[in-house]
Amino acid sequence: MLSENITINSAGHLCFAGHDVCELAQRFGTPLYLMDEGRIRENCRVYLNAFRKNFGENAMPAYASKAASFRRIYEIMREEGMGIDVVSSGEIFTAVKAGFPMEKSMFHSNNKTDADIRYAISCGVGCFVVDGEDELLRLEQIAAEQGHTQRILLRLTPGIDPHTYEAINTGRVDSKFGTAIETGQAMPLIRLALEQKHIELAGFHCHVGSQVFEEDVFQRTANIMVGFMAEVRDELGFTAKILNLGGGYGVRYVESDPAADIGARIGEVAEHIRAVAQKHDFPMPFIVMEPGRSIVADAGMTVYQVGAVKRIPGYKNYVSIDGGMGDNPRYALYGAKYTVLSGNRALEEADFPCDLVGRCCESGDIIQPEILLPSATCRDDIVCVCTTGAYNYSMASNYNRVPRPPIVMLRDHDAYVAVRRETLEDIAALDV
Amino acid sequence: MLSENITINSAGHLCFAGHDVCELAQRFGTPLYLMDEGRIRENCRVYLNAFRKNFGENAMPAYASKAASFRRIYEIMREEGMGIDVVSSGEIFTAVKAGFPMEKSMFHSNNKTDADIRYAISCGVGCFVVDGEDELLRLEQIAAEQGHTQRILLRLTPGIDPHTYEAINTGRVDSKFGTAIETGQAMPLIRLALEQKHIELAGFHCHVGSQVFEEDVFQRTANIMVGFMAEVRDELGFTAKILNLGGGYGVRYVESDPAADIGARIGEVAEHIRAVAQKHDFPMPFIVMEPGRSIVADAGMTVYQVGAVKRIPGYKNYVSIDGGMGDNPRYALYGAKYTVLSGNRALEEADFPCDLVGRCCESGDIIQPEILLPSATCRDDIVCVCTTGAYNYSMASNYNRVPRPPIVMLRDHDAYVAVRRETLEDIAALDV
Repeated sequence: MLSENITINSAGHLCFAGHDVCELAQRFGTPLYLMDEGRIRENCRVYLNAFRKNFGENAMPAYASKAASFRRIYEIMREEGMGIDVVSSGEIFTAVKAGFPMEKSMFHSNNKTDADIRYAISCGVGCFVVDGEDELLRLEQIAAEQGHTQRILLRLTPGIDPHTYEAINTGRVDSKFGTAIETGQAMPLIRLALEQKHIELAGFHCHVGSQVFEEDVFQRTANIMVGFMAEVRDELGFTAKILNLGGGYGVRYVESDPAADIGARIGEVAEHIRAVAQKHDFPMPFIVMEPGRSIVADAGMTVYQVGAVKRIPGYKNYVSIDGGMGDNPRYALYGAKYTVLSGNRALEEADFPCDLVGRCCESGDIIQPEILLPSATCRDDIVCVCTTGAYNYSMASNYNRVPRPPIVMLRDHDAYVAVRRETLEDIAALDV
Repeated sequence: MLSENITINSAGHLCFAGHDVCELAQRFGTPLYLMDEGRIRENCRVYLNAFRKNFGENAMPAYASKAASFRRIYEIMREEGMGIDVVSSGEIFTAVKAGFPMEKSMFHSNNKTDADIRYAISCGVGCFVVDGEDELLRLEQIAAEQGHTQRILLRLTPGIDPHTYEAINTGRVDSKFGTAIETGQAMPLIRLALEQKHIELAGFHCHVGSQVFEEDVFQRTANIMVGFMAEVRDELGFTAKILNLGGGYGVRYVESDPAADIGARIGEVAEHIRAVAQKHDFPMPFIVMEPGRSIVADAGMTVYQVGAVKRIPGYKNYVSIDGGMGDNPRYALYGAKYTVLSGNRALEEADFPCDLVGRCCESGDIIQPEILLPSATCRDDIVCVCTTGAYNYSMASNYNRVPRPPIVMLRDHDAYVAVRRETLEDIAALDV
């Protein structure tokens, strides 16, 4: 199996975190997002333990909550002792509702509105990750109005291409994010930040992209960043305290994806940073990483009911399910790969080639093409898509006016609703 | 200008439907969806008048409401005398709330759940467009339980490639929609439908794709469909009464898109169908078309506020706005083209090459690359994206936990909220 939280029981039903998915479908309806709470906590602890072991107290993993943002997830992050990365007033609002200690939050976005800035300051966000000059100057102005001094990192682009999807590749010089070192624009921006009276520059952020598998990408990033931090010290007399390396490691969507030994890799990164810092005679900075996908992706599974099986002889076959690009737009957006398993025929041979498609009136509403399901698959069957914990609920829409599925959290002997199913009344509630 | 409802006033501000977009931004906030009610009505009347002129009473244009589904739009369709095409319980629910006469609705979807079927019957949906055998048999079963006879069309795939985007190309034999004529599967399905006791087969539906520009695509479709209807009559003794040709004509997103003379084209289609029917000695069927995009797209404009302008010398420039793929995912999904205009610098020369990007923490959050805006464009400026009336609000998500914009309808001297702005409380309301 793709992940050890996926098993098959004696009834031939797929189980997730030890729970029979067919029973869950019966109890909570479909489509249904499942999340394995234990797995989320384990994933956090991989980062927390590796950080503690390799950096001591001088570091913090921060959950990139855009991967899956809802109240319960921030409660879990609070309980586990994680930091968080938030990208909007909406994420801040939700984290605050969960009682998350906002001093451990990092506020990102290439465009923070005035309202966002005011709201984030009022909520005590620990650190703004300032994207560029426009934001820096506006933040200074608003902080001054409020008699507040805001701690910030400046987001820089190190010019690294991590060989991930184009759409989630953010470390290149031509990124919409951050300010480029290579173009000479970073240094004057740092000078400008240091001149501001209501801003406390604490260090730098960079992010080379999501779903990173290359072994040395953080090392290459650290070379550039620590080297540049030493330059900044030499030129401006400013010693950065924090280095935020951005996103975490890749996850396995399909069997052929490599399994990252995150603990070991963080050890290598730590050793490398220490060596680079030493080389530049630079004090070891406080290290932040922002894993999102690798915290929640494999803790998620989506459960669908089949509505139609269509065989087009000489062409192809389709299995239509009761969700689609509305609850998981990642194939439509990126051609993302997923593993698909039968829920109620988990022991039957999967030898029926088909495309798993959604219910939306759009040909592009594909969850995954060219998969195999048992040939007896028919209407009312249960089909599960693995590794949907990241960027599924958070990207969900009401396309075709279809309500968004609930999120049901799974604990040892317990399944509980963390996000309730949207109703037709909910959707229509915005109609005046 | 792209469309005659876009003008510039003496203050150098862009106007939509005669309203100053900067004033509207001030009054209603940004991001903001605007819809020109007059234009929606005019677009309906182009179809209605052409249908009346060319088909008499024996035809109905039905608004494909997935393009933009909210209560007010169904009220307008009711007032204009349009039919509607609905694709989910959510669209049916909203249409019913608007007092739409549901006997004039066509219910689509490649996967109607049992709950959808029950709900649609209870709401008196005029016609199910049955996608295949699974649905046909389940509909018979549920209709029988309810002592109801349901009128249906069968959706067939004529095997036409209309040269549109892959994702919205639906008439090909290998489509997830409908049942193929070419494979010999359509005839037995029709026989099966005729055998059902609680189903009244009224005719056939086909849909060759959205954003169609090729002049003769409906003619080629009619050749196949009317020819096949004659075959069905000869083989099964069943004379179909209704032929639903699916989606409408393309719209202009950019200046280089052709302007379709829809009235004239419908005249040509009518003449062609009459000739084909005559050739097969087949009675002229009741004709339905389902325009969505061409009813609402050019009646829409999205108004954004600029948060940052980033110049990366030797690479490229970015203008970041306060919305993005959350309110308009069409570039991210399809690489869709849009025309972008400055709201407050409408008379200044647009000579600053840039990418217009959203506020989401994702590199792929692009509204439109390689556009031109005035070089003085800066934070707090207003930027407008044209032709966003279709598949923007309906596809909008809360990605990054960003609330969805309101829809403000514009009438002669009046602007009113049809869909209110989503709040952070609304988003968090589903968190249990």
